[in-house]
Amino acid sequence: MDHSVWSVPAREVAPIAHGGDLGALRQAFPDAPEPWLDLSTGINPVPYRVPPVEASAWTRLPEAGEVRALREAAAAAYGAPDSDHVVPAPGTQILIETLPRLLAPTRVAVLGPTYAEHAAAWARAGHAVTETSDIDALGEARVAVIVDPNNPDGRTHPLAERRALAAALAARGGLLVADEAFADLEPVESLCPHAEPGTVVLRSFGKAYGLAGLRLGFAVAEPETAARIAAALGPWAVSGPALTIGRAALSDAGWRAESARARAADAARLDRMIARAGGRIVGGTCLFRTADFPDGPDLYRRLAAAGIAVRRFAGRPERLRFGLPSDKAAWCRLSRVLR
Amino acid sequence: MDHSVWSVPAREVAPIAHGGDLGALRQAFPDAPEPWLDLSTGINPVPYRVPPVEASAWTRLPEAGEVRALREAAAAAYGAPDSDHVVPAPGTQILIETLPRLLAPTRVAVLGPTYAEHAAAWARAGHAVTETSDIDALGEARVAVIVDPNNPDGRTHPLAERRALAAALAARGGLLVADEAFADLEPVESLCPHAEPGTVVLRSFGKAYGLAGLRLGFAVAEPETAARIAAALGPWAVSGPALTIGRAALSDAGWRAESARARAADAARLDRMIARAGGRIVGGTCLFRTADFPDGPDLYRRLAAAGIAVRRFAGRPERLRFGLPSDKAAWCRLSRVLR
Repeated sequence: MDHSVWSVPAREVAPIAHGGDLGALRQAFPDAPEPWLDLSTGINPVPYRVPPVEASAWTRLPEAGEVRALREAAAAAYGAPDSDHVVPAPGTQILIETLPRLLAPTRVAVLGPTYAEHAAAWARAGHAVTETSDIDALGEARVAVIVDPNNPDGRTHPLAERRALAAALAARGGLLVADEAFADLEPVESLCPHAEPGTVVLRSFGKAYGLAGLRLGFAVAEPETAARIAAALGPWAVSGPALTIGRAALSDAGWRAESARARAADAARLDRMIARAGGRIVGGTCLFRTADFPDGPDLYRRLAAAGIAVRRFAGRPERLRFGLPSDKAAWCRLSRVLR
Repeated sequence: MDHSVWSVPAREVAPIAHGGDLGALRQAFPDAPEPWLDLSTGINPVPYRVPPVEASAWTRLPEAGEVRALREAAAAAYGAPDSDHVVPAPGTQILIETLPRLLAPTRVAVLGPTYAEHAAAWARAGHAVTETSDIDALGEARVAVIVDPNNPDGRTHPLAERRALAAALAARGGLLVADEAFADLEPVESLCPHAEPGTVVLRSFGKAYGLAGLRLGFAVAEPETAARIAAALGPWAVSGPALTIGRAALSDAGWRAESARARAADAARLDRMIARAGGRIVGGTCLFRTADFPDGPDLYRRLAAAGIAVRRFAGRPERLRFGLPSDKAAWCRLSRVLR
């Protein structure tokens, strides 16, 4: 109907595939052994231990003081100047959806290939979106989106280069959206300490802490921008359990350091296993490894037949992304196919 | 800066007061006895018992099959035609914030006075918002917002009248947003079975089930509209624990019937107590009662001094809203002030 009140399309042109949903795989491979080994995501397979959650976290509306405490813990963990720079959200994904609708339609450039939801969300909100693989070409747009470290290839740019891009955009009244979803356990320098006007950093909680079902993520930005984003989510955006658990985990620098060390060792082990199977490592982070295989589609099927889910990519049949196995049995199961 | 990339204001003109946050009251009344008795919200004081939550609900990304099961349970509980009419969200509030940004700026009329976040959210998104107390005047706008039963006065309109309003708006390509946040335990007829194009019904989970910290709410709309709203929230909008707990609770019609009976008895008891204290009942639902008192501000202070938080209203000093006490001790404590 041409007189529709809606400014957004009713249907996606093509739904975006994601890891982490085994329903379709179970249907396609009904004879695969249960339980499936899900390596289709980049979620830490050794999660932060969920601390006891008080009954009141479920029953009461989250209080402003609890939200502030979470923001302070996140500011410290991410190196943001202070808690006024931090906006908690029920997952980073909802920030990716919400941000584009807070800006008047403009030119948006996404550094790609990368996590496909960014370009899709800006396009859905009516922006003119282009994808480029050249970071120098991003500055010509009004809004630039980078994922650093990148998913799925782990590509990262020096902090100075990212700051220069942010400054160039800010000077023209533009915006840099820097998705650091996989930065927590990596030896990369974050933009969070440098969240100046014109920069919004996105930080995921669930991936590094292995608690993706909790739904918690953050935007880090200078306070005026942070206030705009917070207003768009409204009060009580984050659940009571997420406030409690997120605060405990983000305050635990020791766990983070130990997990980074252990996952880096896991990633190195996975690289050796992939190489033995004829894969060429494209890159990744310590939570996932991406590789090209001469027999990609066949390997995908053999893994699925063995009840192992990995991530594949539309238009790149040779490419597979592996999450980390969680324990000895899982490593052995993967090893039996990758040889 | 006049060349800002943002289309939303940086700051609220005036922040909206809400119940449920005792931090400020504790500061203002430092000598009040702890723990406070929080009657400042309309949340069921006898919550649905949280069923055991599997570890995987915290660690995994919510799966599409789990989301579908929640949508089916919600469709059955609300009387929606089917699960394609149901969009789960992390609380109704985020739907209130998100909906206005999915429509091009237009004329919006809110039936008021009511929950203040509706008008604020539409105004923030650039719409021209008016408030009217006359339901017949709503049809002149492109978008109409009603809260039925209304907060804080419990006002409700016959289903036929609401359907006629929806039809009038739909005929002109407009939209009726019907917030039924307090409908679950009331003897009112829902618009959910009649969610035709041009109608979006909002349903809160946390209030009726006493689990406001869980953050769960729903939009009910015909499938094309539901798809637009779902796309705006993105995948994984609802946490793993909310999927599990929400599905169990929404499938439990026996609990709902028993809770409706018990809360209605509580509400009648509260009315008698308010009347004895000189209050004139304005209205409410079985989860809150609103009354006018000749000595409203003084009563508010006496309640706070006794560690009891109730809701007051800007510009209406005589008016107070009371949530329900949860147990005998709480009833006695309230009774000691209200006499």
